[in-house]
Order: sequence, then structure tokens, then C-alpha cells
Amino acid sequence: MKKLQFWLEYGSTYSYLSVARIGRLADARNIEIDWQPFYLLPIFTKLGMDYGPFLPYPNKMEYMWRDIERRAQRLGVPYQRPSAYPINSLPTARIACIAAAEGWCRAFTEEVFRLHWTQGRLIGTDENLGAALDTLGKDAAAMLARAQTPEAKDALRQQTERAEALKIFGSPSFIVDGELFWGDDRLEEAMDWAERV
Amino acid sequence: MKKLQFWLEYGSTYSYLSVARIGRLADARNIEIDWQPFYLLPIFTKLGMDYGPFLPYPNKMEYMWRDIERRAQRLGVPYQRPSAYPINSLPTARIACIAAAEGWCRAFTEEVFRLHWTQGRLIGTDENLGAALDTLGKDAAAMLARAQTPEAKDALRQQTERAEALKIFGSPSFIVDGELFWGDDRLEEAMDWAERV
Repeated sequence: MKKLQFWLEYGSTYSYLSVARIGRLADARNIEIDWQPFYLLPIFTKLGMDYGPFLPYPNKMEYMWRDIERRAQRLGVPYQRPSAYPINSLPTARIACIAAAEGWCRAFTEEVFRLHWTQGRLIGTDENLGAALDTLGKDAAAMLARAQTPEAKDALRQQTERAEALKIFGSPSFIVDGELFWGDDRLEEAMDWAERV
Repeated sequence: MKKLQFWLEYGSTYSYLSVARIGRLADARNIEIDWQPFYLLPIFTKLGMDYGPFLPYPNKMEYMWRDIERRAQRLGVPYQRPSAYPINSLPTARIACIAAAEGWCRAFTEEVFRLHWTQGRLIGTDENLGAALDTLGKDAAAMLARAQTPEAKDALRQQTERAEALKIFGSPSFIVDGELFWGDDRLEEAMDWAERV
């Protein structure tokens, strides 16, 4: 089966557009998505981009919101502008690593992004995480506690190191047969590549 | 007739992908392209991005070249990696302003980019400019001298101020009915918008 790695930072705005459609598109095209949660901030920090690609540039920031709104409409993705940016994606990313190891990363990710981008329940809050875990039938309190263990912290740290080794510098990123594609607007291209190889 | 403003920095790599196809696409879709050369460096400098979006980040830079190569292939655009980056686009941009005022900006721009991206004759050199002006039947020496006049310098400065007032922060940028689209990968979207309004 054709395979596509989906490298994902939970605080990334454009990544929502990919999360909202990658599962459906991949099902339709018979491509297997390998969910790879990671934490982008340490990579940004090393690059000297502590505040990410938008925050220091008001015009770019304003453009980003408008662009995502237009793209969501074009792609048929529900959109409601979240009330906060940036958000703290760290606890979510740690739980996502557990979810990836246990095979429920897609459902978890779709739900936390849906709550953030359509319900005003922000990623990074216990409310978002609790609701998503409830929906998936997980024990939310136990999972939140597990996310604080050294094992969970280390798993995410290792993921971020892997992302760095793969020369990833943003989210979403897609890797197909060693080829890196960056940005939601490369999703279709990455999938075409998966079908080609 | 539907109108689309094409804001263009001649040192921008991704802008080549738009220059190489916008004329043809616009003809086919009956959209009028309003060529708007400007000079991006002063805007970058104000934003604290003196070295542009790629140069300080080796992984992003390496990705940029690979991405453009893949996109060129996908879009059917000839591509040969230029031997230098960044380049000095200032004299070219000044002549482009004259060309835009006199109605030959499309032919001029297509030719200077073609020489840079397929013939190894770099934008910013007199060789590139001379050859492009020759091809268009212009007096190259007279034009290069004209580009050094206060009028020519002022015309480009005003263009850059207009770009800034329009909240442009990168190239290529497209404006349709007040909507800003940034990046070659938004060209089709901008054209769809032009047909919609």
C-alpha cells in the first residue's frame, strides 16, 4: 500500500486544513497515512524563529487568517476563527504520541482540531483534551496523568528529534519515499507522489 | 474585463513559476493582468527579514530549490537551477517600471526570467538585461542609462510604497478586487476569484 507520513504540530494553523481532509482523501485514494505528531517550537527556537512564522509580522498574520478562511471555504472545511493564537500544544502533542503508538491518532487529532476550529474549545486546554478523550471513550484523567510521565515526555522529544533529522522546519509536512513536502497546499502533490512511487 | 494585479519582485525564486505561466493562463481565461513590478528588499528590511525568507535557514533553502524543481515539472515549466541566489534585482525592477508604464512589461519579464531560469544568464547582470532588451527591439544602452535617472528610481520607490500600503509582504502577490493572494500556489485561486467577482 502507498504510504504517506504526516508530520503534525498541534499549534499550527494551516495544519487544520490538512487534518480536516487528509483522512478522507487518503481513504478515497487508498493511501495509508502514518500519523507523526511532533513539537515544532524547539526547532523554531534553534532557527531563531521563537515566535513562529506569523506573530512578528502583523500583515502576514492578518493575511494568514484571511487565507485560511478562504481556503477552508474553497475546500469545504468548516471554519470558525479561534479566539487565541498561539496556543500551548505541548500536552496535546504528548497524548498524540501515545495515540499514534496505540493506533487512535487520527480520531484523536480530528476531534481536537474540530473542537478548536469549529467549537471554540481551544487546543491546549484541559477542556479540549477532556472532551476529545471522552468522545473516543478514553479515561481522560488517566490519560492526562500519563502525558506527564517521563516516558510520554521522552516519546515526544524523540519525535521532534526525528523531525529535525528529516530536515522538517514547519507543519504540516508530508514525507513520501524520502521526499519532503511542506504546507497544506502541497497535500495533493504529496499524495500524487505516493501514487507515482 | 476581469482584472488581476500581479505584484512582482524580480529576485524572487517562486515568482518564476508565476511569470512562466500567468500570461498564458490569463489569455485562456480572459483575465487582464496588471503587471506591478516592485522592490521587496526595503519591505523585508522593515520587517527585520534582511536576508529574505530562505537564506538564514539552510533546510528551508534546500527545500525551496527542490520544491521549485518539482513544481516546475508538475506545471510544465522549464527549469534549470540558477547558479546564484540571491541576486541584485534593482536595475531590472527599474526598467520593469518603465516597461509597465509603456505596456511591454509582460514580454520583458517573461524574457528576463527565461534567461535566468533556463539559460544561466542571471537577472541583475547587464548581460541578462541587454539580451532581453535586444530581443524586444529596445535600445539597451539607452534603457540602462534611463534606469539610472532620478525619475526611474523614484518610480520604483513609489511602487514599493504602494505595495507596502497594500500590505504586501512577499512575491508573487496577486490582488483581485481588494483581496490579497500570496505565493505562486495561490495563482489559480486568485484567478478563480477574478472570475467570481
